[in-house]
Amino acid sequence: MDCLFCKIIRGSIPSEKVYDDELFIAILDINPVNKGHLLVIPKRHSENIFDLDEPEISNIMKVIKKLSQVLMKTLNAEGVNIIQNNCKAAGQIIFHSHFHIIPRFSGDNIKIGMVHGQYAEGEMKEFAEKIRAGL
Amino acid sequence: MDCLFCKIIRGSIPSEKVYDDELFIAILDINPVNKGHLLVIPKRHSENIFDLDEPEISNIMKVIKKLSQVLMKTLNAEGVNIIQNNCKAAGQIIFHSHFHIIPRFSGDNIKIGMVHGQYAEGEMKEFAEKIRAGL
Repeated sequence: MDCLFCKIIRGSIPSEKVYDDELFIAILDINPVNKGHLLVIPKRHSENIFDLDEPEISNIMKVIKKLSQVLMKTLNAEGVNIIQNNCKAAGQIIFHSHFHIIPRFSGDNIKIGMVHGQYAEGEMKEFAEKIRAGL
Repeated sequence: MDCLFCKIIRGSIPSEKVYDDELFIAILDINPVNKGHLLVIPKRHSENIFDLDEPEISNIMKVIKKLSQVLMKTLNAEGVNIIQNNCKAAGQIIFHSHFHIIPRFSGDNIKIGMVHGQYAEGEMKEFAEKIRAGL
């Protein structure tokens, strides 16, 4: 397969791997938002969150929590951002599902650019009703 | 308790709730990055990912996946970003753990501002070794 992350998992492309279990690996992002930025990658190829299966779904957060703790301890990080992008419209670039863990430090000047907007009068209720109807 | 999300969970502050199970609720963010932006919130008070317990850790991603699917279907979203910020240094503002699900649309001009940097020669290996030593 031509997938970059599948090649990394198979070892045909080198990476700095920091974690490896039955389901997931974690590697250093080669272009880190902050140094120590990790990617947690399911070994089984899946495009995005919609394709994650059991047991991936029920085990991924345990790995993310553990690695987040390790970044706090080993890099003296003061916080972490967990980010996962699904589909091109959401800025996904490599179409093998992965979770970013970004170590953060006071005054590091990194902006996870969430610009918050507003609902018009009554619009929030409309959106809630639409979403509830889909459950 | 003075926690905003605890008050929302107890119902003493109103919210547009779209999901409710034994462990979690999901509500609309009142200042959405995009309309339909959800917050998935554990009912039990915890400050951040480091305080999430079993069964929260093993159930949270199932809820996030389900709600992401619902946003795709009900809002015709073309992607979603999952974001969770831990600690002040990472931009956390409300200190009750929560996960953002942001519906995305082609050309919505939203930037999840991850500015990628670089490692100096040999530095990536040093970081990997530090992190592996903490596992």
